[in-house]
Amino acid sequence: MELLSTQPYKGTRDFYPDDMKLRNWFFGKIRRALELAAFDEYNGPMVESLDLYIAKSGEEIACEQTYNFEDRGGRRLAIRPEMTPTVARLVAAKCAELNMPLKWFSIPNLYRYERPQRGRLREHWQVNVDIFGCDTFDADLEVISTAINLMKSFDADETMFRVHINNRRFFNDVISAICGTDAEGSRKVSKVVDRRNKVTREAYVKDLTELGISEDKIAKIDALYTMTVEEATALCPESRGSEELLSLFEAVRAMGIEKYCVFDFGIIRGLDYYTGTVFEVFDEAPENNRAMFGGGRYDNLVGLFLKKTNISGVGFGFGDVTLENFLVTHKLIPDIYNIGKKVLVARFEEVPVEKYTSIVDSLRENGIVSSLYIGTKKFGKQLDYAIKGKYTHVVIIGGNELETGIAKIKNLSTHEETECPIDKIGKYFN
Amino acid sequence: MELLSTQPYKGTRDFYPDDMKLRNWFFGKIRRALELAAFDEYNGPMVESLDLYIAKSGEEIACEQTYNFEDRGGRRLAIRPEMTPTVARLVAAKCAELNMPLKWFSIPNLYRYERPQRGRLREHWQVNVDIFGCDTFDADLEVISTAINLMKSFDADETMFRVHINNRRFFNDVISAICGTDAEGSRKVSKVVDRRNKVTREAYVKDLTELGISEDKIAKIDALYTMTVEEATALCPESRGSEELLSLFEAVRAMGIEKYCVFDFGIIRGLDYYTGTVFEVFDEAPENNRAMFGGGRYDNLVGLFLKKTNISGVGFGFGDVTLENFLVTHKLIPDIYNIGKKVLVARFEEVPVEKYTSIVDSLRENGIVSSLYIGTKKFGKQLDYAIKGKYTHVVIIGGNELETGIAKIKNLSTHEETECPIDKIGKYFN
Repeated sequence: MELLSTQPYKGTRDFYPDDMKLRNWFFGKIRRALELAAFDEYNGPMVESLDLYIAKSGEEIACEQTYNFEDRGGRRLAIRPEMTPTVARLVAAKCAELNMPLKWFSIPNLYRYERPQRGRLREHWQVNVDIFGCDTFDADLEVISTAINLMKSFDADETMFRVHINNRRFFNDVISAICGTDAEGSRKVSKVVDRRNKVTREAYVKDLTELGISEDKIAKIDALYTMTVEEATALCPESRGSEELLSLFEAVRAMGIEKYCVFDFGIIRGLDYYTGTVFEVFDEAPENNRAMFGGGRYDNLVGLFLKKTNISGVGFGFGDVTLENFLVTHKLIPDIYNIGKKVLVARFEEVPVEKYTSIVDSLRENGIVSSLYIGTKKFGKQLDYAIKGKYTHVVIIGGNELETGIAKIKNLSTHEETECPIDKIGKYFN
Repeated sequence: MELLSTQPYKGTRDFYPDDMKLRNWFFGKIRRALELAAFDEYNGPMVESLDLYIAKSGEEIACEQTYNFEDRGGRRLAIRPEMTPTVARLVAAKCAELNMPLKWFSIPNLYRYERPQRGRLREHWQVNVDIFGCDTFDADLEVISTAINLMKSFDADETMFRVHINNRRFFNDVISAICGTDAEGSRKVSKVVDRRNKVTREAYVKDLTELGISEDKIAKIDALYTMTVEEATALCPESRGSEELLSLFEAVRAMGIEKYCVFDFGIIRGLDYYTGTVFEVFDEAPENNRAMFGGGRYDNLVGLFLKKTNISGVGFGFGDVTLENFLVTHKLIPDIYNIGKKVLVARFEEVPVEKYTSIVDSLRENGIVSSLYIGTKKFGKQLDYAIKGKYTHVVIIGGNELETGIAKIKNLSTHEETECPIDKIGKYFN
């Protein structure tokens, strides 16, 4: 028989216990922070109708960037590449009974069909945070301050990350004011601005020129990249987008979180479904300075499912790979592998098993992580097992100890050996 | 544009916040119980090479019962239908460095391609518990007592569930002693015994007769179904399987967990890869009396990946749908939807937002789940929102309260209104 490969599928990862501890640690922190802020967790199936992604991104992109297939009933399915269509579906299905505004989050695993590269794997886990059913900038503010709180929950400070904020409505209006473009014209300009950091200056200017934008107008757009929010919004003071931006930044200052935030006209968030505030959270480390995650306001997604129903949403998604890179870069991961006591009860053949299991039971009743050694190896092997398994203590009860009623307890970090009456071991480690 | 369906894909479920709370509650309990017993959590990718399942179950079953497809590189992939091949792969990949015996668990989501029916959906979540690298019955004992501990962690008692235990080695040997069959003959008999409760008595007898087993031998097999473990093992006292069964039951009695356990010759666990102990945990409710989950010892799975390497495993898997049915049937789910305080800070236009956000910050610093109302609705609407959202208290600070420095606090269950200095609200709920 040919042997099977032990490698996971390309672009996916195995999570051995140490990897899993790390992931559970950081998602646990995020989950607690979100629950404390009264966000409710939801989840949905891994497999969805492919139509969900086609409706949002078009047939070509949906088919190319997802793992998709047909079931035997001819249904076209995809493994979810993102959570937003799923959550929009859930909201649409029960919108009459749900308590708006909803504060929801989820931590799904997602699959994208793309070339694996740093920070972009085919399978990843992603925290999704969304608020549904609030049309004013208050929800945008709550989402942005939640993103900041999540970063702060890891003791990240303003030297490590920054939230870059823009507004799509403002973008369209200011481009229209400068260039005289209509909505479609502004959308085309947004695509060029979105690509700006990925192409040369020449290519950028050429793309704008091809859209009929003259040199002096390009200069005016250039100026926007370094303007304050007041300077920029003064170019189109009547715009609702300007008003939203100014209100948002006013609140950000009043709340004392302006040190984490900056206006950035270059933030577009490619996807066409964003309608208002858009933002990206940047890693400020010089060697790693780039957008880690982002989000924004999307007002019409629920409309894919329901006629004449407008439930606005605003949210963001934050992937585990990016988060882990950030935490490693800024040395924000404490020693999570050696926390608390962990007790191995060693085992000797002359002692009946129930003596040991009752000790383990009493340790667990006292909340002590503990295990009876499984098997019949010699004590030296059991000690090796305890050390390699990061146990902190070994309880030793052989024939002699059973007779005297006094167990030996070995501390594996100090190498000290102490004694304890066998019937008191349960409380010994408290 | 055609509207999309709001239904999840056939056989899968949406988890709205209340559903999610329930799942998080019972898997949280299981996770804590396993961690206390020094089990380590691992995970692997949702998508694996289809070959893993073909090697274990054959091409036909693997293709028919999984969601499988090819990627653009021609790799045949499947969404994992079970966790055992994945964990065997992980163990094989690092077997030289892993600290045996391993105590591992995982809570993956799995996909099976089958007709959805009660307790059998296409997507489910499943706790998997395994011990690798211990060849003696000690590991079997640890796995069975872990299954019992998980049930007890929900306050289930011996009237609600029972572990039915058998041994494949014993089965083969006792059938061989009664019928004179070789290994292959005993395997064929095991298939008939496995199907026994799904067919009529006539069909069962006919199947055995076709295997050349005479009437008096069938009577001898019949007797086994009601025998004690001592009576049954006396039929083939030399069998290693008999010895394992007797040792296991002896330990079970010594540990005082015999009230949860029963010897049951009818337990086979269809799959051929089981080699020793097999068990199934039954729901004892008369209206729901059936096997909920099971497991056993499989000694050769890691051999699919590695030559000349024998790392034995013993474990079980327990699905969320079955667990939920059991908990509902036996009324073991407490009120998990109204736990602890949850505070809504109401919002009035005349008060600057930073007054409110600083109060919410101080509540969260004190560990109180809390939220500022998002938006600008009237107070009555905010109160409705709080009631529907299961908030326990509403903090009221309008223009007057801001002036006097005294907030009103409304208790939503007693309907009492009390007062608290605004700068002391953070500690009010502790």
